[in-house]
Amino acid sequence: MGAVNLAIIHYPVLDKRGDVVSTSINNLEIHDVARSCMTYGVDLCYIVTPLDRQRAIATQLVDHWRSGYGRQYNPDRAEALEKISIKKSLAEVTQELNGSQPVLIGTSSKRRENSIGYSELARWIPQDRRSFLLLFGTGWGLPPEIVSSCERTLLPIAGPGEYNHLSLRVAIGIILDRLFGDRKEANAQ
Amino acid sequence: MGAVNLAIIHYPVLDKRGDVVSTSINNLEIHDVARSCMTYGVDLCYIVTPLDRQRAIATQLVDHWRSGYGRQYNPDRAEALEKISIKKSLAEVTQELNGSQPVLIGTSSKRRENSIGYSELARWIPQDRRSFLLLFGTGWGLPPEIVSSCERTLLPIAGPGEYNHLSLRVAIGIILDRLFGDRKEANAQ
Repeated sequence: MGAVNLAIIHYPVLDKRGDVVSTSINNLEIHDVARSCMTYGVDLCYIVTPLDRQRAIATQLVDHWRSGYGRQYNPDRAEALEKISIKKSLAEVTQELNGSQPVLIGTSSKRRENSIGYSELARWIPQDRRSFLLLFGTGWGLPPEIVSSCERTLLPIAGPGEYNHLSLRVAIGIILDRLFGDRKEANAQ
Repeated sequence: MGAVNLAIIHYPVLDKRGDVVSTSINNLEIHDVARSCMTYGVDLCYIVTPLDRQRAIATQLVDHWRSGYGRQYNPDRAEALEKISIKKSLAEVTQELNGSQPVLIGTSSKRRENSIGYSELARWIPQDRRSFLLLFGTGWGLPPEIVSSCERTLLPIAGPGEYNHLSLRVAIGIILDRLFGDRKEANAQ
Protein backbone atom coordinates (compact mmCIF):
# COMPACT_ATOMS: atom_id res chain seq x y z
CA MET A 1 0.00 0.00 0.00
CA GLY A 2 1.36 3.38 -1.03
CA ALA A 3 0.84 6.68 0.75
CA VAL A 4 -2.46 8.56 0.58
CA ASN A 5 -2.20 12.31 0.08
CA LEU A 6 -4.75 15.07 -0.42
CA ALA A 7 -4.56 18.26 -2.42
CA ILE A 8 -6.91 21.17 -1.77
CA ILE A 9 -6.96 23.33 -4.87
CA HIS A 10 -7.52 27.10 -4.57
CA TYR A 11 -6.66 27.72 -8.24
CA PRO A 12 -7.86 26.78 -10.80
CA VAL A 13 -11.39 26.22 -9.47
CA LEU A 14 -14.86 27.21 -10.65
CA ASP A 15 -17.07 29.93 -9.25
CA LYS A 16 -20.86 29.76 -9.18
CA ARG A 17 -21.09 30.90 -12.82
CA GLY A 18 -18.60 28.24 -13.93
CA ASP A 19 -15.75 30.71 -14.51
CA VAL A 20 -12.24 29.78 -13.41
CA VAL A 21 -11.18 31.72 -10.31
CA SER A 22 -8.79 31.66 -7.36
CA THR A 23 -10.22 31.32 -3.83
CA SER A 24 -8.70 32.40 -0.52
CA ILE A 25 -6.98 30.06 1.89
CA ASN A 26 -8.81 29.88 5.16
CA ASN A 27 -7.20 29.41 8.57
CA LEU A 28 -9.81 27.05 9.94
CA GLU A 29 -9.70 24.95 6.80
CA ILE A 30 -6.02 24.28 7.44
CA HIS A 31 -6.54 23.34 11.09
CA ASP A 32 -9.60 21.20 10.46
CA VAL A 33 -8.14 19.31 7.54
CA ALA A 34 -4.83 18.74 9.34
CA ARG A 35 -6.68 17.17 12.26
CA SER A 36 -8.77 15.00 9.93
CA CYS A 37 -5.59 13.84 8.16
CA MET A 38 -4.02 12.90 11.51
CA THR A 39 -7.12 11.01 12.57
CA TYR A 40 -7.42 8.98 9.38
CA GLY A 41 -3.74 8.33 8.64
CA VAL A 42 -3.36 10.53 5.56
CA ASP A 43 0.29 11.26 4.79
CA LEU A 44 0.19 14.86 3.60
CA CYS A 45 -2.35 17.47 2.65
CA TYR A 46 -1.14 19.90 0.00
CA ILE A 47 -2.75 23.34 0.00
CA VAL A 48 -2.40 24.72 -3.52
CA THR A 49 -2.46 28.39 -4.48
CA PRO A 50 -0.37 30.36 -6.97
CA LEU A 51 -0.80 33.58 -4.95
CA ASP A 52 2.47 34.40 -3.15
CA ARG A 53 0.83 36.43 -0.39
CA GLN A 54 -1.67 33.65 0.36
CA ARG A 55 1.10 31.08 0.59
CA ALA A 56 3.08 33.39 2.89
CA ILE A 57 0.11 33.80 5.27
CA ALA A 58 -0.58 30.06 5.31
CA THR A 59 3.09 29.29 5.95
CA GLN A 60 3.17 31.81 8.80
CA LEU A 61 0.11 30.20 10.39
CA VAL A 62 1.56 26.71 10.14
CA ASP A 63 4.92 27.86 11.53
CA HIS A 64 3.25 29.61 14.48
CA TRP A 65 1.62 26.38 15.63
CA ARG A 66 4.48 24.07 14.70
CA SER A 67 7.07 25.91 16.77
CA GLY A 68 7.40 28.36 19.62
CA TYR A 69 4.44 29.27 21.81
CA GLY A 70 1.80 27.61 19.64
CA ARG A 71 3.49 24.23 19.94
CA GLN A 72 3.85 24.60 23.70
CA TYR A 73 0.20 25.68 24.17
CA ASN A 74 -1.32 22.97 22.02
CA PRO A 75 1.01 20.12 20.99
CA ASP A 76 -1.85 18.14 19.37
CA ARG A 77 -2.37 21.02 16.97
CA ALA A 78 1.35 21.26 16.22
CA GLU A 79 1.48 17.55 15.47
CA ALA A 80 -1.49 17.79 13.09
CA LEU A 81 0.02 20.71 11.18
CA GLU A 82 2.99 18.53 10.22
CA LYS A 83 0.49 17.15 7.70
CA ILE A 84 0.24 20.45 5.81
CA SER A 85 2.40 21.39 2.83
CA ILE A 86 1.81 24.65 0.94
CA LYS A 87 2.39 24.47 -2.83
CA LYS A 88 2.24 26.80 -5.82
CA SER A 89 0.46 24.49 -8.28
CA LEU A 90 -0.87 21.00 -8.79
CA ALA A 91 2.10 20.43 -11.12
CA GLU A 92 4.43 21.15 -8.18
CA VAL A 93 2.56 18.56 -6.10
CA THR A 94 2.61 15.82 -8.72
CA GLN A 95 6.29 16.59 -9.40
CA GLU A 96 7.07 16.01 -5.70
CA LEU A 97 5.10 12.75 -5.77
CA ASN A 98 6.34 11.66 -9.15
CA GLY A 99 8.58 8.92 -7.85
CA SER A 100 5.46 7.21 -6.53
CA GLN A 101 3.39 7.85 -9.74
CA PRO A 102 0.23 8.65 -7.79
CA VAL A 103 -3.22 7.57 -8.85
CA LEU A 104 -5.28 10.77 -9.17
CA ILE A 105 -8.78 10.53 -7.68
CA GLY A 106 -11.11 13.49 -8.16
CA THR A 107 -14.02 14.55 -5.98
CA SER A 108 -17.19 16.26 -7.11
CA SER A 109 -20.69 17.10 -5.97
CA LYS A 110 -21.94 15.52 -9.21
CA ARG A 111 -21.88 11.92 -10.38
CA ARG A 112 -19.38 11.45 -13.26
CA GLU A 113 -18.88 8.78 -15.90
CA ASN A 114 -15.77 7.51 -14.13
CA SER A 115 -17.32 7.58 -10.65
CA ILE A 116 -16.12 5.15 -8.01
CA GLY A 117 -17.84 4.24 -4.73
CA TYR A 118 -16.26 4.55 -1.29
CA SER A 119 -16.06 0.87 -0.47
CA GLU A 120 -14.57 0.11 -3.90
CA LEU A 121 -11.84 2.73 -3.42
CA ALA A 122 -11.28 1.59 0.19
CA ARG A 123 -10.59 -1.95 -1.10
CA TRP A 124 -8.40 -0.71 -3.99
CA ILE A 125 -5.98 1.50 -2.01
CA PRO A 126 -4.35 -1.24 0.14
CA GLN A 127 -4.02 -3.52 -2.90
CA ASP A 128 -2.08 -1.02 -5.02
CA ARG A 129 1.60 -0.24 -4.56
CA ARG A 130 1.18 3.22 -6.05
CA SER A 131 0.33 6.20 -3.87
CA PHE A 132 -3.03 7.95 -4.19
CA LEU A 133 -3.68 11.67 -4.48
CA LEU A 134 -7.25 12.78 -3.71
CA LEU A 135 -8.09 16.15 -5.26
CA PHE A 136 -10.55 18.62 -3.74
CA GLY A 137 -11.71 21.85 -5.38
CA THR A 138 -12.64 24.86 -3.25
CA GLY A 139 -15.30 27.31 -4.50
CA TRP A 140 -17.69 25.55 -6.88
CA GLY A 141 -15.31 22.69 -7.51
CA LEU A 142 -12.57 21.40 -9.82
CA PRO A 143 -12.48 22.59 -13.45
CA PRO A 144 -12.95 20.09 -16.31
CA GLU A 145 -9.22 19.90 -17.17
CA ILE A 146 -8.40 18.61 -13.67
CA VAL A 147 -11.42 16.29 -13.49
CA SER A 148 -10.47 14.73 -16.82
CA SER A 149 -6.90 14.13 -15.64
CA CYS A 150 -8.21 11.93 -12.80
CA GLU A 151 -8.34 8.17 -13.18
CA ARG A 152 -11.60 8.01 -11.20
CA THR A 153 -13.91 10.45 -9.41
CA LEU A 154 -15.43 9.66 -6.00
CA LEU A 155 -19.22 9.58 -5.88
CA PRO A 156 -20.79 12.68 -4.35
CA ILE A 157 -21.74 12.43 -0.66
CA ALA A 158 -25.48 11.89 -0.40
CA GLY A 159 -27.74 12.43 2.56
CA PRO A 160 -31.42 11.46 2.64
CA GLY A 161 -32.48 14.59 0.69
CA GLU A 162 -31.48 16.60 -2.36
CA TYR A 163 -29.35 19.26 -0.68
CA ASN A 164 -25.65 18.74 -1.35
CA HIS A 165 -23.78 21.83 -0.27
CA LEU A 166 -21.54 20.52 2.49
CA SER A 167 -18.61 22.69 3.43
CA LEU A 168 -15.37 21.38 1.96
CA ARG A 169 -13.77 20.99 5.42
CA VAL A 170 -16.65 18.78 6.51
CA ALA A 171 -16.85 16.87 3.22
CA ILE A 172 -13.15 15.96 3.46
CA GLY A 173 -13.71 14.59 6.99
CA ILE A 174 -16.70 12.52 5.85
CA ILE A 175 -14.83 11.15 2.81
CA LEU A 176 -11.84 10.13 4.96
CA ASP A 177 -14.18 8.50 7.48
CA ARG A 178 -15.93 6.54 4.72
CA LEU A 179 -12.57 5.38 3.33
CA PHE A 180 -10.49 4.86 6.48
CA GLY A 181 -12.81 5.13 9.52
CA ASP A 182 -12.70 2.23 11.94
CA ARG A 183 -16.19 0.89 11.35
CA LYS A 184 -15.65 -2.16 13.54
CA GLU A 185 -15.24 0.24 16.46
CA ALA A 186 -18.52 1.85 15.48
CA ASN A 187 -20.54 -0.60 17.59
CA ALA A 188 -20.50 -0.62 21.38
CA GLN A 189 -20.61 -4.39 21.74
CA MET B 1 -40.00 8.66 14.01
CA GLY B 2 -39.65 11.94 15.88
CA ALA B 3 -37.48 14.88 14.92
CA VAL B 4 -33.70 14.84 15.33
CA ASN B 5 -32.15 18.02 16.71
CA LEU B 6 -28.62 18.99 17.69
CA ALA B 7 -27.38 21.31 20.41
CA ILE B 8 -23.87 22.77 20.32
CA ILE B 9 -22.98 23.84 23.84
CA HIS B 10 -20.66 26.80 24.41
CA TYR B 11 -21.33 26.87 28.16
CA PRO B 12 -20.92 24.89 30.35
CA VAL B 13 -18.01 23.04 28.69
CA LEU B 14 -14.59 21.90 29.85
CA ASP B 15 -11.25 23.48 29.01
CA LYS B 16 -8.01 21.51 28.66
CA ARG B 17 -7.49 21.50 32.43
CA GLY B 18 -11.02 20.18 33.03
CA ASP B 19 -12.36 23.50 34.37
CA VAL B 20 -15.80 24.67 33.30
CA VAL B 21 -15.59 27.56 30.83
CA SER B 22 -17.53 29.35 28.11
CA THR B 23 -16.23 29.23 24.52
CA SER B 24 -16.83 31.66 21.65
CA ILE B 25 -19.30 31.10 18.88
CA ASN B 26 -17.59 30.84 15.55
CA ASN B 27 -19.03 32.03 12.23
CA LEU B 28 -17.79 29.11 10.21
CA GLU B 29 -19.09 26.63 12.76
CA ILE B 30 -22.59 28.01 12.20
CA HIS B 31 -22.36 27.83 8.40
CA ASP B 32 -20.75 24.40 8.32
CA VAL B 33 -23.12 22.82 10.79
CA ALA B 34 -26.19 24.36 9.11
CA ARG B 35 -25.14 22.83 5.78
CA SER B 36 -24.50 19.44 7.40
CA CYS B 37 -27.95 19.57 9.05
CA MET B 38 -29.57 20.34 5.66
CA THR B 39 -27.70 17.50 3.99
CA TYR B 40 -28.63 14.89 6.58
CA GLY B 41 -32.21 15.94 7.37
CA VAL B 42 -31.66 17.25 10.91
CA ASP B 43 -34.56 19.44 12.05
CA LEU B 44 -32.80 22.15 14.05
CA CYS B 45 -29.38 22.90 15.44
CA TYR B 46 -29.43 24.91 18.65
CA ILE B 47 -26.36 27.02 19.37
CA VAL B 48 -26.22 27.52 23.14
CA THR B 49 -24.44 30.35 24.93
CA PRO B 50 -25.48 32.44 27.94
CA LEU B 51 -23.43 35.43 26.72
CA ASP B 52 -25.79 38.13 25.37
CA ARG B 53 -23.20 39.69 23.07
CA GLN B 54 -22.30 36.31 21.53
CA ARG B 55 -25.96 35.54 20.87
CA ALA B 56 -26.41 38.98 19.32
CA ILE B 57 -23.49 38.48 16.91
CA ALA B 58 -24.68 35.01 15.94
CA THR B 59 -28.23 36.27 15.37
CA GLN B 60 -26.92 39.11 13.20
CA LEU B 61 -24.90 36.66 11.10
CA VAL B 62 -27.86 34.35 10.61
CA ASP B 63 -30.17 37.26 9.73
CA HIS B 64 -27.69 38.63 7.19
CA TRP B 65 -27.74 35.40 5.21
CA ARG B 66 -31.41 34.59 5.73
CA SER B 67 -32.66 37.89 4.33
CA GLY B 68 -31.56 40.81 2.18
CA TYR B 69 -28.43 40.67 0.09
CA GLY B 70 -27.05 37.47 1.62
CA ARG B 71 -30.15 35.51 0.63
CA GLN B 72 -30.03 36.89 -2.91
CA TYR B 73 -26.32 36.16 -3.33
CA ASN B 74 -26.43 32.64 -1.98
CA PRO B 75 -29.90 31.10 -1.52
CA ASP B 76 -28.45 27.67 -0.58
CA ARG B 77 -26.76 29.27 2.38
CA ALA B 78 -29.95 31.10 3.41
CA GLU B 79 -31.89 27.85 3.27
CA ALA B 80 -29.33 26.06 5.45
CA LEU B 81 -29.35 28.78 8.09
CA GLU B 82 -33.07 28.18 8.70
CA LYS B 83 -31.71 25.21 10.65
CA ILE B 84 -30.00 27.40 13.25
CA SER B 85 -31.63 28.54 16.48
CA ILE B 86 -29.65 30.55 19.06
CA LYS B 87 -30.49 29.77 22.72
CA LYS B 88 -29.40 30.97 26.15
CA SER B 89 -29.13 27.59 27.88
CA LEU B 90 -29.67 23.87 27.45
CA ALA B 91 -32.69 24.28 29.75
CA GLU B 92 -34.20 26.70 27.23
CA VAL B 93 -33.67 24.10 24.48
CA THR B 94 -35.21 21.20 26.39
CA GLN B 95 -38.10 23.47 27.43
CA GLU B 96 -38.82 24.23 23.77
CA LEU B 97 -38.67 20.51 22.95
CA ASN B 98 -40.48 19.40 26.05
CA GLY B 99 -43.70 18.47 24.28
CA SER B 100 -41.72 15.84 22.41
CA GLN B 101 -39.79 14.63 25.53
CA PRO B 102 -36.53 14.24 23.62
CA VAL B 103 -34.09 11.41 24.19
CA LEU B 104 -30.77 13.03 25.12
CA ILE B 105 -27.75 11.50 23.41
CA GLY B 106 -24.31 12.76 24.43
CA THR B 107 -21.12 12.76 22.38
CA SER B 108 -17.60 12.40 23.68
CA SER B 109 -14.07 11.70 22.55
CA LYS B 110 -13.94 8.99 25.24
CA ARG B 111 -15.79 5.70 25.53
CA ARG B 112 -18.38 5.83 28.36
CA GLU B 113 -20.25 3.19 30.31
CA ASN B 114 -23.48 4.03 28.51
CA SER B 115 -21.88 4.19 25.04
CA ILE B 116 -23.95 3.33 21.99
CA GLY B 117 -22.68 2.53 18.48
CA TYR B 118 -23.68 4.38 15.32
CA SER B 119 -25.59 1.56 13.67
CA GLU B 120 -27.48 0.82 16.90
CA LEU B 121 -28.56 4.47 17.23
CA ALA B 122 -29.38 4.63 13.51
CA ARG B 123 -31.77 1.67 13.96
CA TRP B 124 -33.27 3.08 17.18
CA ILE B 125 -34.19 6.58 15.95
CA PRO B 126 -36.78 5.57 13.31
CA GLN B 127 -38.38 3.07 15.73
CA ASP B 128 -39.00 5.61 18.50
CA ARG B 129 -41.82 8.16 18.47
CA ARG B 130 -39.85 10.52 20.70
CA SER B 131 -37.55 13.15 19.27
CA PHE B 132 -33.80 12.93 19.76
CA LEU B 133 -31.45 15.68 20.89
CA LEU B 134 -27.75 15.08 20.19
CA LEU B 135 -25.48 17.14 22.44
CA PHE B 136 -22.05 18.39 21.38
CA GLY B 137 -19.59 20.17 23.67
CA THR B 138 -17.19 22.76 22.27
CA GLY B 139 -13.77 23.25 23.89
CA TRP B 140 -12.67 20.03 25.63
CA GLY B 141 -16.19 18.62 25.71
CA LEU B 142 -19.33 18.33 27.83
CA PRO B 143 -19.05 18.51 31.63
CA PRO B 144 -20.02 15.49 33.79
CA GLU B 145 -23.42 16.92 34.80
CA ILE B 146 -24.55 17.07 31.16
CA VAL B 147 -23.01 13.70 30.27
CA SER B 148 -24.80 12.04 33.18
CA SER B 149 -28.14 13.54 32.10
CA CYS B 150 -27.87 11.73 28.74
CA GLU B 151 -29.60 8.40 28.20
CA ARG B 152 -26.71 7.17 26.04
CA THR B 153 -23.39 8.54 24.74
CA LEU B 154 -22.25 7.96 21.15
CA LEU B 155 -18.97 6.08 20.78
CA PRO B 156 -16.01 8.30 19.93
CA ILE B 157 -15.07 8.50 16.24
CA ALA B 158 -12.06 6.30 15.61
CA GLY B 159 -9.63 6.37 12.73
CA PRO B 160 -6.88 3.81 12.21
CA GLY B 161 -4.56 5.47 14.75
CA GLU B 162 -4.66 6.91 18.25
CA TYR B 163 -5.13 10.59 17.40
CA ASN B 164 -8.67 11.78 18.14
CA HIS B 165 -8.74 15.55 17.98
CA LEU B 166 -11.14 16.17 15.12
CA SER B 167 -12.60 19.63 14.91
CA LEU B 168 -16.16 19.75 16.24
CA ARG B 169 -17.53 21.00 12.89
CA VAL B 170 -16.01 18.02 11.12
CA ALA B 171 -16.96 15.53 13.86
CA ILE B 172 -20.61 16.61 13.62
CA GLY B 173 -20.57 16.01 9.85
CA ILE B 174 -19.03 12.56 10.27
CA ILE B 175 -21.50 11.58 13.00
CA LEU B 176 -24.47 12.68 10.87
CA ASP B 177 -23.06 10.77 7.90
CA ARG B 178 -22.65 7.62 10.00
CA LEU B 179 -26.23 7.94 11.27
CA PHE B 180 -28.10 9.25 8.22
CA GLY B 181 -25.78 9.09 5.19
CA ASP B 182 -27.09 7.27 2.16
CA ARG B 183 -24.74 4.32 2.20
CA LYS B 184 -26.54 2.52 -0.64
CA GLU B 185 -25.54 5.44 -2.88
CA ALA B 186 -21.97 4.95 -1.75
CA ASN B 187 -21.27 2.43 -4.50
CA ALA B 188 -21.09 3.34 -8.15
CA GLN B 189 -22.81 0.20 -9.43
